[in-house]
Amino acid sequence: MDYQDFFKIKDDWNIKIEELKDEQLVHYGSNLLCGNGYLGYRGTLEEWGKDEYQACVITDTYDMADGKWRELSNSPNALFTEVKIGGEKLGDYPDEDLMTTELDFDYKYGVFKRNSRAKNSTAEIVSERFASYDNLHLIANKYQLNNLEENKVEIRLGIKGDIWDLNGSHLENFSGEYDSEKNILYLKANTVEKNIDLITALSFDFKKGDIESLKVENEEKSIYLLLKIKPENKVVKFERNMLVYSSNDLKNPLEKAVEAAVEATAEGYQQLKQEHQHVWDKKWELMDIKIAGNQLDQLAVHFNLYHNVIATPAHSEYLPIGARGLSCQAYQGAAFWDQEIFNLPMFLFTETKTAKNILKYRYHTLDGARKKAKDLGYDGAFYAWISGKSGQELCPSFFFKDVISGRKIRNHFNDWQIHVSPDISYTIWKYYIATDDLDFVVDYGSEILFEVARFLHSRVHYNQYKDQYEIIRLLGPDEYHENVDNNAFTNYQTRYALKKALYFYYKMENEYPEKLKALKEKIDLQEKEVTAWQEIAERIYLPEPDENMLIEQFDGYFDLEDTTAEVLEERLIDKQEYWGWPNGVAVFTQVIKQADVIQLFTMHDIFSEEVLAANYDYYEPRTQHGSSLSPSQYAIVAARLGRAEEAYDYFEASAFIDLMSTNKAVSGGTFIGGVHTAAAGGIWQLIVNGFAGMNINRKGLSFMPILPEEWDSVEFKLNYKANKLKIKLSSDSFTVQASASNKTSVEFKVEDKHYKAAAGEEVNIKI
Amino acid sequence: MDYQDFFKIKDDWNIKIEELKDEQLVHYGSNLLCGNGYLGYRGTLEEWGKDEYQACVITDTYDMADGKWRELSNSPNALFTEVKIGGEKLGDYPDEDLMTTELDFDYKYGVFKRNSRAKNSTAEIVSERFASYDNLHLIANKYQLNNLEENKVEIRLGIKGDIWDLNGSHLENFSGEYDSEKNILYLKANTVEKNIDLITALSFDFKKGDIESLKVENEEKSIYLLLKIKPENKVVKFERNMLVYSSNDLKNPLEKAVEAAVEATAEGYQQLKQEHQHVWDKKWELMDIKIAGNQLDQLAVHFNLYHNVIATPAHSEYLPIGARGLSCQAYQGAAFWDQEIFNLPMFLFTETKTAKNILKYRYHTLDGARKKAKDLGYDGAFYAWISGKSGQELCPSFFFKDVISGRKIRNHFNDWQIHVSPDISYTIWKYYIATDDLDFVVDYGSEILFEVARFLHSRVHYNQYKDQYEIIRLLGPDEYHENVDNNAFTNYQTRYALKKALYFYYKMENEYPEKLKALKEKIDLQEKEVTAWQEIAERIYLPEPDENMLIEQFDGYFDLEDTTAEVLEERLIDKQEYWGWPNGVAVFTQVIKQADVIQLFTMHDIFSEEVLAANYDYYEPRTQHGSSLSPSQYAIVAARLGRAEEAYDYFEASAFIDLMSTNKAVSGGTFIGGVHTAAAGGIWQLIVNGFAGMNINRKGLSFMPILPEEWDSVEFKLNYKANKLKIKLSSDSFTVQASASNKTSVEFKVEDKHYKAAAGEEVNIKI
Repeated sequence: MDYQDFFKIKDDWNIKIEELKDEQLVHYGSNLLCGNGYLGYRGTLEEWGKDEYQACVITDTYDMADGKWRELSNSPNALFTEVKIGGEKLGDYPDEDLMTTELDFDYKYGVFKRNSRAKNSTAEIVSERFASYDNLHLIANKYQLNNLEENKVEIRLGIKGDIWDLNGSHLENFSGEYDSEKNILYLKANTVEKNIDLITALSFDFKKGDIESLKVENEEKSIYLLLKIKPENKVVKFERNMLVYSSNDLKNPLEKAVEAAVEATAEGYQQLKQEHQHVWDKKWELMDIKIAGNQLDQLAVHFNLYHNVIATPAHSEYLPIGARGLSCQAYQGAAFWDQEIFNLPMFLFTETKTAKNILKYRYHTLDGARKKAKDLGYDGAFYAWISGKSGQELCPSFFFKDVISGRKIRNHFNDWQIHVSPDISYTIWKYYIATDDLDFVVDYGSEILFEVARFLHSRVHYNQYKDQYEIIRLLGPDEYHENVDNNAFTNYQTRYALKKALYFYYKMENEYPEKLKALKEKIDLQEKEVTAWQEIAERIYLPEPDENMLIEQFDGYFDLEDTTAEVLEERLIDKQEYWGWPNGVAVFTQVIKQADVIQLFTMHDIFSEEVLAANYDYYEPRTQHGSSLSPSQYAIVAARLGRAEEAYDYFEASAFIDLMSTNKAVSGGTFIGGVHTAAAGGIWQLIVNGFAGMNINRKGLSFMPILPEEWDSVEFKLNYKANKLKIKLSSDSFTVQASASNKTSVEFKVEDKHYKAAAGEEVNIKI
Repeated sequence: MDYQDFFKIKDDWNIKIEELKDEQLVHYGSNLLCGNGYLGYRGTLEEWGKDEYQACVITDTYDMADGKWRELSNSPNALFTEVKIGGEKLGDYPDEDLMTTELDFDYKYGVFKRNSRAKNSTAEIVSERFASYDNLHLIANKYQLNNLEENKVEIRLGIKGDIWDLNGSHLENFSGEYDSEKNILYLKANTVEKNIDLITALSFDFKKGDIESLKVENEEKSIYLLLKIKPENKVVKFERNMLVYSSNDLKNPLEKAVEAAVEATAEGYQQLKQEHQHVWDKKWELMDIKIAGNQLDQLAVHFNLYHNVIATPAHSEYLPIGARGLSCQAYQGAAFWDQEIFNLPMFLFTETKTAKNILKYRYHTLDGARKKAKDLGYDGAFYAWISGKSGQELCPSFFFKDVISGRKIRNHFNDWQIHVSPDISYTIWKYYIATDDLDFVVDYGSEILFEVARFLHSRVHYNQYKDQYEIIRLLGPDEYHENVDNNAFTNYQTRYALKKALYFYYKMENEYPEKLKALKEKIDLQEKEVTAWQEIAERIYLPEPDENMLIEQFDGYFDLEDTTAEVLEERLIDKQEYWGWPNGVAVFTQVIKQADVIQLFTMHDIFSEEVLAANYDYYEPRTQHGSSLSPSQYAIVAARLGRAEEAYDYFEASAFIDLMSTNKAVSGGTFIGGVHTAAAGGIWQLIVNGFAGMNINRKGLSFMPILPEEWDSVEFKLNYKANKLKIKLSSDSFTVQASASNKTSVEFKVEDKHYKAAAGEEVNIKI
């Protein structure tokens, strides 16, 4: 497929869609999302509604409307606009050939622009909007009708509460009001389950004298103003501000919404935009990755970095990163292991506070994880597979269905996919060695580490006959093989998590004995448990490379039918079938959904290149990449193996997953569309850990650079132990420039050699 | 349903079927089977072929024709007979209204009789046959055509090799011959996989002078004689003998078959029948159960005892009892746990040598069980779920199918249903205490006990957190719930098996140190293994009655949806659906296929009546009885609880499973028809262990008698520690009569009181 079928490049940051394709509506909505970690307003036109997947997803509004899925709520749409000229509607509606529309999206500042021209008149709609990073509750919009011929123009604008929801309507008890003095509309509603008040306010500012009459229309779920425009106007333009506040944000959201709406109008669109851009400029200072020599790839990288940022509720330490960010309700706006392993690394090295917030979220959700462990008969913290605000398990037991019989399928993500817990421990360790922030570990991380170790202790089994600890009945990262034993990734992660818990236990014993004592009392931790962690860490079974250097993904994997995803594709009875548990086409074969042993390699730098090569060559042709998490990990290992072009192919596969809509939006009957935020975060890793080969461990920082021939150079920044580095990689050189403001010099390795960069120093290395 | 829809009662031993129903052909074939543990000739008419499920199943002919199912082979049909009168065929063919047939079957001697009258002439066919217990290779038949009008009569008889097979044709390289001197036809063939030679011979004796001409017809798989009968004959009668020998029986089966065929003809039908009946008379002397006051039940009991006997290859210590006996190829003619737990108990107390042979079969198949354990990564002996001659696992991994999608289903009977191994250990113990046959245990049983203990050692896991051994990923007796942990039945059986292994280990250490030493060397048994058995036996988790006195069938069972089989029936999309793993209607509910916790109670006399009552009341309404193994076990517990009428209802359910065809012949696309031999064996237990409440343990023999009001009395015999007892139970008395030939007096308990019966003494107890 050609990218031009999907978009055109304007510059390093901007794409253009010259003509809307009806079958791409789901993807436009997600790809052209205006967001800021608090809300996500989908890339839809003002005249669109639920049939066109219009939605504005609001963080921290978890609610269950259908008895099954607890997900984020969508706010009413305060940008809704219906225009009639001479009684005929104006707008670009799917399947109706009334207008042509060009869309522009700016990934530097998240600005959505439309330009629509009517086909049977001279009329135009021009509009732009952004979700503010200065006030996270604000979406500012500038809307203009051009070239109006003298005619009766009616504009119906307001707040539409009849909105798209994935799993039932979350809002009820709508009440709308128009404050004519302040020129503000607002719509109040509350969520059906948790009774969260959600306020949507709309302030707007018309050019005086444009309006002939104004009528308030109060519908069951909506409130509109019907404006008749004076016929002599050739142009109608207005600025408006959509504000969303919930009772989870503050005590009196209505008052605040009205106040903020008034303020926003007072400031005006241009000023609001400047304040917003200022925040982004600061972010890009450290986050940007510059690619020379390939504008398409540069743009794609910006797309991915942008989406990783706006998916992340950086403003809060109590909220998760949704697997689809705030691009839609799919995956319940909830965190998976993706959060720590895919989204977080970019922040760890560019916006450390956000990385800390993400980990603090796991601290604040410990009780949810404890409850899950207890409910399932375990101890400690078993983190939810799908984790919302409380950290209690959101993953329903049944969600895929057998699309042939229609019978629901029990999926064991919620009880067998345990690696999320050690993944969090792993990330606490990485955070610690990247930041030296021992305080965080002592005050927050240690409790997580100990409770995860405790869970693992209760989860493993000792095989007396083989004198080893084992983990029985698992799902590893590869989700097509459930109910497996000793998944290599999970077993290695388990040992790692236990070792890090032990490390900090003894470190606190030496350095913070009082804090350890207090924590032990708080969570009733016994010495014998710590002894057990030690024993398990020493004797847990870790699948080692066999005589062919291969690590078996789980016990018995190599005995399964050896075939390929292409062959399985042909065995499908229905294209919508779920491939995995319990009876999907992949279950009894070696075809895997995604990186699993390969994922182990990208996270643990303990295997030889020979082992990496053997396993890469083995697992690569057997991997379907049915998960967007997969290509970036293959790319990293390919780069480690010096296979720059294979790594580049995986870069392409990963970077364009959403831009070119290569992943399916429905699987086994469940909608899974939206932005693949983990893949977005994966792009940062793919470049930094892959092409630059960056790695950190207790020995320090190291690089193994290699550049694909499609690029002239790549440049990025790292914040490492509070020092800043600017890295530039070209085909034959690797440059590390230490910021003049650094407090210490930075040591690092490139290939096998050691280097040091003093503050302000630039180290150039021939590669 | 009324039994008269299926058969009429002639007397205590004989049933009559007055008119054949086409839809009952599968069941007639099985129910009216002539068999002797070597072969089973289905209850079909001489003119029938494969479309009418004609088959003669031969023991010890395991062979795989379709690459999937290794099953017993069917022999060619040497009783095939086609009659034409004036060119018109005579016979009772399904869907053709040519004759009416009455069938009689005698369950005392296994004699099948037919009497057919033509509808458009006076002609009759009268025939009878039996499978000899005097020569197990012989089926003798007497065949007669009556009331022939003067017409052209042609009889085509011979050996038909084109036969019914469940899973592919097992025979090839047919070669037939007619020896006109001896008047013998024979057909030689060999099995396709194992190349077993199978000889079918036919000798016959016509009244001289009846035949006008004779022509040999050699077809590809068959050999026939076409006989033209002299038109003046009003009656044509002949005797014939079908003989089957295989190269697994002896070296030169052809020679032997011909010789035996000649001998049989020389003896003549009447003499052969007498010799055959003599063997049965001796069997019934101890095996018969006499019910007074209900002839239908008496007949049904005879039906079940007969089928348990003829299913059992009592002549060999190398062959299993098929789950469908020799009634058809379903279940591969192979042993399941049914063999020890359902078929064997009757023999243990009536024909001890046969019980020993059954257990010796498990000794001879130890290598198969060792191989299975090794293949699956375990140690010791993991007995096959479906065990043929070698004891290697015959159970294919895929055999049910999703009848809606047609996709095959992985069924884990072969790797997760482990209780068969401890079930065998359990039975060795019961054999020992019933017989005092320590030699058997020392020379055979101990090796089984130790290897099973070894397997269990390698199969359990220690949960360090809970300080208990657990058994993870199981199927208990209830096959609708696979992949469960700590199935109560299996865990209790495991401890029992370990304890009995330890008991005999120490007993041999004291009493047979040399034999123990030799055995330890033979199987390389280490002291530390024995220590491990001890530890596991002490610390294995045994689900105990909870606050409601309930034992949870497995971890989490009580959390499943609580519903009934009737409700699930309505959820079926297709009536043929398999209810179990992985996505059948019962999987996520508390509906169980069969007795599981209840099975635990019938085998372990360690729970209070209160516990029995609570669990019976809980599990009973949740049990589908989708297995024929189930009703007898519920009956036994009901009887223990003094609920004679409930027990009687389950007697009815169990005794008539085959007689009234209440069980389905196809499940999940797999043919499972044939005689339910375990249910047949279960009837003996139901009466002896249920109504008489007989139990043996190390403390001795005991009874808890209770009689259903439908019976006046029930009478049976027991062979206990080489003493014979005749027991009679009526509504108010319980009589134990010790045989005059007993060597010692026999002590026993009835209810709570102790009694003793000296040789020849009769003890009468008021109840």
